[in-house]
Amino acid sequence: MTLGFHWLATASGCDPAKIRDRERVREVLDRLGPTLGLTAVGGPAVHVNDDGSLVGFVLLAESHASMHVPPQGDGFLADVFSCVSFDAEVAAELLVDAFGGNLQGRIVER
Amino acid sequence: MTLGFHWLATASGCDPAKIRDRERVREVLDRLGPTLGLTAVGGPAVHVNDDGSLVGFVLLAESHASMHVPPQGDGFLADVFSCVSFDAEVAAELLVDAFGGNLQGRIVER
Repeated sequence: MTLGFHWLATASGCDPAKIRDRERVREVLDRLGPTLGLTAVGGPAVHVNDDGSLVGFVLLAESHASMHVPPQGDGFLADVFSCVSFDAEVAAELLVDAFGGNLQGRIVER
Repeated sequence: MTLGFHWLATASGCDPAKIRDRERVREVLDRLGPTLGLTAVGGPAVHVNDDGSLVGFVLLAESHASMHVPPQGDGFLADVFSCVSFDAEVAAELLVDAFGGNLQGRIVER
């Protein structure tokens, strides 16, 4: 039985300034749930570490979405986990629109 | 290049009351990061939906950990994502100690 759909995505070639813009990341996480037809129930929370890496999270009624930006480079990792199916292409478009670059994703059924 | 380690776990045969005990879930998420040698930087946040399902997360400096409890049954889904490696067996032990049952997990390198 599938209990949920976990989209795991890796972005590369993004704008390094945009992916480390805390407010931009917060705003994207804020939009991600509703854009996918999912319901935000907590956050988003974004934290910038001393090394410049950034982690962010939004709690969804259906589970969660997150971003992780390493301290260097032009890429990031994102995931969306939901107990109901969603259109991962829509999530990819939102992230590429916001940060540039390109994105490879896969869905893990859980 | 591996940017992170994503542990995806499915628990079954747990105590239905314990997995839907909001305070217990919050406390487990609170302990999960430090127990793995990871650093909590936001949350934990736990939300109970109208249908009785429960979602929770904690933001880590290294990424995040989350739990998702469906509205029915004796199981739940959990994940820990970190840019540094961690001992998933320790995470599994903490969750089984707290909620009973047994747990199947796998690490996805990202």
